[in-house]
Parts: sequence; structure tokens; C-alpha cells
Amino acid sequence: MLSASVEVRVRYEETDKMGIVYHANYFTWFEIARIELLDAMGCPYLSLEEDGLYLPVLSCKADFRSPAHFDDRLRVVVKIEDSPLVRIRAGYEVFREEQLLATGETTHAFLSAEGKVVRPPEKFLEKAGEFEKRGQAPVVE
Amino acid sequence: MLSASVEVRVRYEETDKMGIVYHANYFTWFEIARIELLDAMGCPYLSLEEDGLYLPVLSCKADFRSPAHFDDRLRVVVKIEDSPLVRIRAGYEVFREEQLLATGETTHAFLSAEGKVVRPPEKFLEKAGEFEKRGQAPVVE
Amino acid sequence: MLSASVEVRVRYEETDKMGIVYHANYFTWFEIARIELLDAMGCPYLSLEEDGLYLPVLSCKADFRSPAHFDDRLRVVVKIEDSPLVRIRAGYEVFREEQLLATGETTHAFLSAEGKVVRPPEKFLEKAGEFEKRGQAPVVE
Amino acid sequence: MLSASVEVRVRYEETDKMGIVYHANYFTWFEIARIELLDAMGCPYLSLEEDGLYLPVLSCKADFRSPAHFDDRLRVVVKIEDSPLVRIRAGYEVFREEQLLATGETTHAFLSAEGKVVRPPEKFLEKAGEFEKRGQAPVVE
Repeated sequence: MLSASVEVRVRYEETDKMGIVYHANYFTWFEIARIELLDAMGCPYLSLEEDGLYLPVLSCKADFRSPAHFDDRLRVVVKIEDSPLVRIRAGYEVFREEQLLATGETTHAFLSAEGKVVRPPEKFLEKAGEFEKRGQAPVVE
Repeated sequence: MLSASVEVRVRYEETDKMGIVYHANYFTWFEIARIELLDAMGCPYLSLEEDGLYLPVLSCKADFRSPAHFDDRLRVVVKIEDSPLVRIRAGYEVFREEQLLATGETTHAFLSAEGKVVRPPEKFLEKAGEFEKRGQAPVVE
Repeated sequence: MLSASVEVRVRYEETDKMGIVYHANYFTWFEIARIELLDAMGCPYLSLEEDGLYLPVLSCKADFRSPAHFDDRLRVVVKIEDSPLVRIRAGYEVFREEQLLATGETTHAFLSAEGKVVRPPEKFLEKAGEFEKRGQAPVVE
Repeated sequence: MLSASVEVRVRYEETDKMGIVYHANYFTWFEIARIELLDAMGCPYLSLEEDGLYLPVLSCKADFRSPAHFDDRLRVVVKIEDSPLVRIRAGYEVFREEQLLATGETTHAFLSAEGKVVRPPEKFLEKAGEFEKRGQAPVVE
């Protein structure tokens, strides 16, 4: 399993007149967590795009249990549980301290610059493999 | 069934560096279609809030088949197929001309100003009933 | 003078917890009005980009007199008063019925795909000239 | 002078099809810097709202020198140079490492819950005074 987490502080801009975070913004937070996971793997998203690969969102969903509010400091956890094949599925959890506010999922595929679905690049698979091993037996730093 | 549709023209702000619409923006378009449906029913969302009722999003999802681009003129169709009980489920389709670009779903519940889940108000149920009848036997205008 | 106007209906997503429209969203409305002006001139922005030209924002400002609210139907007026030289300046007014809610200004320059500032293309200047003449002596349609 | 700075990492969602950050997003970053300054002063914005005070944006502007890109780590510096009277003016600078990408300004006034302009509250003025003194003769911690 690949996993990472990131801190997000709720921006005023992300709230709506109901006084809570507008639901679509959770998907931007999921994006931030994915970017962090790719960084942690040693395979930053920007370097994938520099190699002519894109990782668009094919589907996404979220379930909201409790609203997030302005200035909340949230923790967004991302997990990729299955081996990344052509379709990659990432799960998300949004916490305020110990409280689970929302869960979500996105699916992705690697796309070439020409817009064709391609297999995950070797670099990505290799880094994913190394990252998983590190996760199981963490290196002392 | 309750149904409405709305035209959306893609804003530059809604695109991202992939050259396509950022996925989270579809949920804003779904919102626009919901607002239009409530208008068409004769039960504008603003009037619900004035009555102290809110209709937050409990869950949402979208599946993306083909990307939308800047300046596209899209048609967003919303349908509520089930009788609205405590939980209301709305389905969405996004078209560019005849091409289906994306589908989606949101679920909602009526919330009181105190944040308690309540049954749909009489006004809403009545207007929904009338709207469905009009849909089945459209009035000649 | 080049001028156009566009209707905007305030989206729930554009509001914030103060119950009013978040200020940054006015700049997106200004964009919509600019796009409309280029359309009305017969020189759509998309066609400029297809010719390898971009019209980025060099500076922008807005003054807010009265807040806009969810579901308001606003009229956004854009005017280019000076002859478009290398730097193009557009002014904006946002109205709710007769009430002026906000004014603004953006400046732009044409940029080549290589990121160099270039003079406005002939097509643009020609269309601007024709549009101004039409404005002064409107064609009966 | 009151001053603070904050790190911002550019989100994919903040880019547009020109491959750069959409200009309106700088105003959200300015907001983040303001919030940070109020925190640093010991007068968090949320506590002001809890006291029934709002600090809406009366005007805003930005000048863009060089574009920001996805994944850039930016430093946003905010400064309030004048003594805060009824109208409060904040200046901003956005840096990528040593390069100044953009400057900006916002003006604000304190508003009561009834929407009336009021003088800055004592708490705010006191904290501002203490913060300025600390700035001139920093306390060893």
C-alpha cells in the first residue's frame, strides 16, 4: 500500500454562505494529498508531466459526514491499496483532529501527451515498489 | 421524475494546465442545474433558505468520459427519479451537443437552521407533485 | 470605444461564509465579459489562441461598493476606451438592476506562444475598427 | 508596521490552460497572508468574527510581473504600513525564491454584524501596538 498525508488549513475562499466548506473543494484537497504521495514516492507529478505523461481524474466521489469550517486544520490521508495497473484507485480520508469528516475516492489512468491511455511508466512502478518496501521496514534516518 | 437542464459556457478560470476543465468544477455545474430545477418547480433554493432550510450535499460523485474545454457550451441535465424522502438523490449528465461528457450524482437532505435533518417541507413536496404532473401532460402555452 | 455586456447569475460556490460573493470571483466575471466582447467583435479569444496568441492579465483591480449575493442576476459591462496599443486596458462595471455594485479594470498584452509581448494582431485591430464603426452607426438587421 | 509572511504551494486547480496560475487566485493567497498576520498579532480573524466583526475587502489590486506555475513554492509577504484607522490598507509581495512575481494591495474596514462600518476594535489596536513593539525589539525566546 502507498500512503501519505498532508495538512490543509481551510481558506475563507473555500467556504460558502452555509458557513461551511463548499463540497467541491474537497477534491482539491484530495489533489494536494496525491501530489504529496507522489513526492513521498520520489516521483513528483511535475516530473511525470515533463516526461509527457498526465494522470487525469477518470472518476471521483466523496461522502461528507461532518462539515469543515473556515480555519480548520485538517489532515488529508491518501491511500493506494491495489497494485497500480492501467487504472489507479486512490482513497482519501479527511480528519479534524481525531474526527473523520469525509471520505473519498478518485480513479486515474496515465495518459500520453497524445491523449492515449498508457501503462504506468517504469519509473512510477519502481518508485512505488521501493516506497512500499520502505513503508514495511522503515529506514532509520 | 423531476428534471431540468441548463446551459453552461466553460470559463477560462475553470480550465487547468492540462488544457481541460478541472474535475471539481463539474460539481459547481451540477449545483447550477439543481438550482434551475428548484426554480422550474416553483420552489427556488433561496426561498428554502429564507424558510430556514438548507439542502447540503451529503455525497457526490462524477464519471468523466471525455474532457470539456474552454468555451465549450455544455448542457447539464439533472433528474430526481425517486420520490424525495429524507434523502434526495439527483443524477446528472453533461453534454456537448450530442456527446455525453460526464455523468454524476449528488445526495442531499433538508437541514434545519439548527443543523438537524428534517423531512422535505410541504411546499417542496407539493411543488414537486405539481411539477411531475405538468411534466406528464405539458400545458400548452 | 469597444463595449459589451453579459448577464451573470451568482453561483452558490461563489459565496463565502460572510454570506456574500468572495471578492476574487469578480475577476472571473470580468473575464466572461471580455470573452463576450471579443465574440461580439468577431474575434473570439479561442481563435486568438489558435493563432498562437495569448492575452494574459498584467494587472487587475476592483472597487466594491455593495456586496453581491447568491442568486443575484448581475450585468457586467466591459469597455475598452483607448485605442488598443501594446497594452490594452479594459474597464468594468457590475450592476444589479440599476445599482452599481463594483467597478474594475484589467490590463493585458498580446503574448506569442514563446512568451514575448507582441503588437495586437491585424485581425484584432481590423475587427476592433469595424466594431467601433458599427457601434456608432448601428446596422439595421 | 505590521508584517507577516506565509508559504504557499501552487495547486493544480489554481492553474489555467495557459499553463500558469489564473490571476484571481493571487487574491486568495493575499487572504492567507492576512489571516497569518492576524494570527501572528494574536488576534485571529475567527475571533474577530466571534466578536461580531467582519473585515471585508473594499478594494483590491494586483500587478503581475512573472507568472507562477504549478508546484511553485511561493512566499507571500503582507505589510500594513499605516496606522489602522477606519480604512486598513495592506500591501503584498509574492516571491518565488528571490524573484518578485507580483505585488498587490487590499483595503478593508471593520463591519459590524449589522453591516455598519465601525472603528477597529480595541483588541485589534492593542494587539497591533504590541506586535509593532515586538517587531522593533524582538523578544529573545
